[in-house]
Amino acid sequence: MTDNVSVEQLRLFIERIERLEEEKKGIADDIKDVYLEAKSQGFDPKTMKTIVRLRKMDKNARQEMEALLDTYKAALGLEV
Amino acid sequence: MTDNVSVEQLRLFIERIERLEEEKKGIADDIKDVYLEAKSQGFDPKTMKTIVRLRKMDKNARQEMEALLDTYKAALGLEV
Amino acid sequence: MTDNVSVEQLRLFIERIERLEEEKKGIADDIKDVYLEAKSQGFDPKTMKTIVRLRKMDKNARQEMEALLDTYKAALGLEV
Amino acid sequence: MTDNVSVEQLRLFIERIERLEEEKKGIADDIKDVYLEAKSQGFDPKTMKTIVRLRKMDKNARQEMEALLDTYKAALGLEV
Repeated sequence: MTDNVSVEQLRLFIERIERLEEEKKGIADDIKDVYLEAKSQGFDPKTMKTIVRLRKMDKNARQEMEALLDTYKAALGLEV
Repeated sequence: MTDNVSVEQLRLFIERIERLEEEKKGIADDIKDVYLEAKSQGFDPKTMKTIVRLRKMDKNARQEMEALLDTYKAALGLEV
Repeated sequence: MTDNVSVEQLRLFIERIERLEEEKKGIADDIKDVYLEAKSQGFDPKTMKTIVRLRKMDKNARQEMEALLDTYKAALGLEV
Repeated sequence: MTDNVSVEQLRLFIERIERLEEEKKGIADDIKDVYLEAKSQGFDPKTMKTIVRLRKMDKNARQEMEALLDTYKAALGLEV
């Protein structure tokens, strides 16, 4: 690290990371804004997040997970 | 911080925190062990975690959340 | 899960987890209280957390980490 | 939510979020790749992360934090 080449390499890596982190933060802010806009039109952000998570799942995996959860809920007296 | 009293006070605070962190880690390990034991008897840890979360909720809040989720799922074509 | 034995087993697992989670929360609250008490006597909680983290490390590992950080800081012009 | 307008609105919000989440994941992957590339050239990713964090701080705040940490380390016998 004492030579100029390494120092310059390290600085370039750090600066690339900083630019990418900034971009990532910008997109995270955009996502927050969409949720806020949806909320202002009467939708519930928390439930929307659950929907996003469920849509990412394979359909069979989701159905199995939901069936198991229903079984456990019935066992513990948590049916609606 | 240069006087002996402050140094000793800081050390005592740090040591109290370390003892509590150790206790907390012990309990976190116990929780993991219970999930492992349940898993070895055929139960699904992930679904159990959902159950623990649902049981913490107020019954009305839980039912409202579930009704809203069902509505959103229907809207997005995610019914079972 | 339809037989009574499994249902009872599941309930017992869930209740054990709930008791342990409550204990864990109690200890986490105790830790917060120690930091608050230390803060009220003039100590800085954030720096205390760094100290707790450093004390957990092996001495050699810590010294290597600190030496490397000093090198990188010098390379990026972050010396004090 | 029973009317077609709301259902369509919800779907559009969800799809906008999904596109943004995908973009965000792409950038997070790019960041991981830069760290891996740096590591393959002999740099230490963990120390690089500390550097990124320190560079984000205001210079005075960073110097105060570092001076306080040195004081606490001396008090606890953690000097190099």
